Amino acid sequence: MNPYEKIIYFDNNATTKTDDEVISVMLPFLGEMYGNPSSMHTFGGQVAKDIRKAREQIATALGAVLPSEIVFTSCASESSNMAVRSILESNPEKKHLITTQVEHPCVLNLFKWLERHKNYKVTYIGVDSEGQLNLDELKVSIKEDTILVACMWANNETGVIFPIKEIGKIIKEKNPNTYFFVDAVQAFGKIPVDLSDGIIDLLSISGHKFHAPKGIGALYIRNKIKLRPLLIGGHQEKSRRAGTENVAGIVAMGHAAELAVKYLEDENTRVRALRDKLEQGIISKIPYTKINGIGTERVPNTTNISFEYIEGELILLHLSDLNICASSGSACTSDTLKPSHVLDAMGVPFSFLHGSIRFSLGRYNNEKEVDYVLEIMPQIIEKLARISPFRK
Amino acid sequence: MNPYEKIIYFDNNATTKTDDEVISVMLPFLGEMYGNPSSMHTFGGQVAKDIRKAREQIATALGAVLPSEIVFTSCASESSNMAVRSILESNPEKKHLITTQVEHPCVLNLFKWLERHKNYKVTYIGVDSEGQLNLDELKVSIKEDTILVACMWANNETGVIFPIKEIGKIIKEKNPNTYFFVDAVQAFGKIPVDLSDGIIDLLSISGHKFHAPKGIGALYIRNKIKLRPLLIGGHQEKSRRAGTENVAGIVAMGHAAELAVKYLEDENTRVRALRDKLEQGIISKIPYTKINGIGTERVPNTTNISFEYIEGELILLHLSDLNICASSGSACTSDTLKPSHVLDAMGVPFSFLHGSIRFSLGRYNNEKEVDYVLEIMPQIIEKLARISPFRK
Repeated sequence: MNPYEKIIYFDNNATTKTDDEVISVMLPFLGEMYGNPSSMHTFGGQVAKDIRKAREQIATALGAVLPSEIVFTSCASESSNMAVRSILESNPEKKHLITTQVEHPCVLNLFKWLERHKNYKVTYIGVDSEGQLNLDELKVSIKEDTILVACMWANNETGVIFPIKEIGKIIKEKNPNTYFFVDAVQAFGKIPVDLSDGIIDLLSISGHKFHAPKGIGALYIRNKIKLRPLLIGGHQEKSRRAGTENVAGIVAMGHAAELAVKYLEDENTRVRALRDKLEQGIISKIPYTKINGIGTERVPNTTNISFEYIEGELILLHLSDLNICASSGSACTSDTLKPSHVLDAMGVPFSFLHGSIRFSLGRYNNEKEVDYVLEIMPQIIEKLARISPFRK
Repeated sequence: MNPYEKIIYFDNNATTKTDDEVISVMLPFLGEMYGNPSSMHTFGGQVAKDIRKAREQIATALGAVLPSEIVFTSCASESSNMAVRSILESNPEKKHLITTQVEHPCVLNLFKWLERHKNYKVTYIGVDSEGQLNLDELKVSIKEDTILVACMWANNETGVIFPIKEIGKIIKEKNPNTYFFVDAVQAFGKIPVDLSDGIIDLLSISGHKFHAPKGIGALYIRNKIKLRPLLIGGHQEKSRRAGTENVAGIVAMGHAAELAVKYLEDENTRVRALRDKLEQGIISKIPYTKINGIGTERVPNTTNISFEYIEGELILLHLSDLNICASSGSACTSDTLKPSHVLDAMGVPFSFLHGSIRFSLGRYNNEKEVDYVLEIMPQIIEKLARISPFRK
């Protein structure tokens, strides 16, 4: 047990604690405001107003031009599936897709599935040793029949930020008919997002990554793009997504989006300082250590650290025993024990690859927690180094 | 305002109030238990146990053979879309589908879409004047290339119960390779559901119809049936549904399912008595009135009443002004103002068709509420009859 006798939660890229304010805002909709927004009666109908407000909050937070550009979904995976599959179904003759080698599994697995089962040809753009996208490779890959480029804004494992607007311009210059879908799950709430320039066609966010509860997400669809729904049925979301609305979740995410914008400054100064102190401390105290992506722009809260010849999973277990939460790779791949496809694409040497862990900080972390992790990490690594057959 | 100065909620088929016990059970997962169940650390991993418990609760409540037969989704619409589209994708050569004329829009619109866009031939089985399914028509409609029959267990508008096990046997006798998908959204919690005999292949339920919150549903997939996921991405739900789990919603629905079974007796006696008092009172007090489906088996909580030459929407508005919630048709079609496709299929005469409203009672209703509605309804109908050009 760590001295605070509570969780030190440095895994905010996996999920975040729901903000207390967000819980207060959503509770009435779990309680007395339980009407169905599609109902004729005032009791149900009044709830539709709260959904409208949340849609405006999300649109404002994203810098969307119109609230109607926002469709509520159950998660970012649904948003990605809806965006990609709908675009493809509407343009069945075009068979080339582009994504990156370092996407989140929710996008990567979808593209692999399309390749295997639906006869799509997919180009997976590589990254350099800092995790930065190869823009020249992207440029030459865009062809006449490229229907979609899917690219994350910030990487979940390393925090590396792609120059998303530049990427968008490259795409539209090479082929104005190519759609541009952006996974902003790890970007929103950590760096400013502004869609008003119309460069991005489709963009997904996930509530539980910015202190809303799990089970709610959104898809931004640029005005004038018509998407066939993924969930067909009722008329909800202007017939773009069937299913009774998750009212409490929607209201919660609306408020959480407002808070995310409000806390951007804190993220960029206080959280960044904590992250920097943590990673600089670890580098200076522990030898044979490497920060992945440190040479390029990253979101302020994330550090991905490799310890040579140390087993990352064992570090995590030791940390977990002390109630410290960190992660290797994404939570969505963590039960596979395969080394990170992101670090692999960056060419992280084999001796470092399996010894990589991610600390992702957030709104509720403080300096005492960083100090404690800095105190404990050298002990853990020293212990593991003793049982590592290759460690000098 | 009605004398109770609170909502009289007779619209439980549209959505239900989340049970206070259910809220208590889910609150920790909106608060301190916010870990991602896919995370390696104990803090996240422990949440996976709560998901497992909820899966067992749902399986038990449905009489499923194995907990792994349950997949959590975001709503019944997602469950239907997943069930139907996955079965079709896995069997692309078979092009005949069967459903009923009285399905919920979430199923009906999906089948119409498949007919229009995917070259499926769909047979829509009719019902008799009581809303009961034409089993002979069903029998002769099942062919060699019939890949799927989709049928609701209980009708959302009238409460009419289809003999679902008999239907299942007819299907399997005619074609053992035809899949049987059941929409049990309005059946579960109102009548016993037991899937242990394996007659039903796939079945959907929706949490918010049985006092869990909105935004959570489930799909039962009979053991040995392999479904391609609708949401492709992460490995969650044994790779059958990508997306970080809606932990609070899942835990809530698990507990709500347990309560639904516990309250079945109350539903079948107390709620049934309230419903019967309400409809008998209305028939006896108001002339030119007809109860749709009264001649066949119905769920205990629902009554669908037609008032000749009276505009149903106006009845609802008058009720809404008194804080009484009722409905015409399903909430999912209520903004279209088209007459109910269910009553239309039953051959309800035109003079009655537009004057139909549904009262759906539930766990929190009491006799005083029924008495008040019985007191007020004759006044409303009398008032509307005066402005009806056709009313005698």
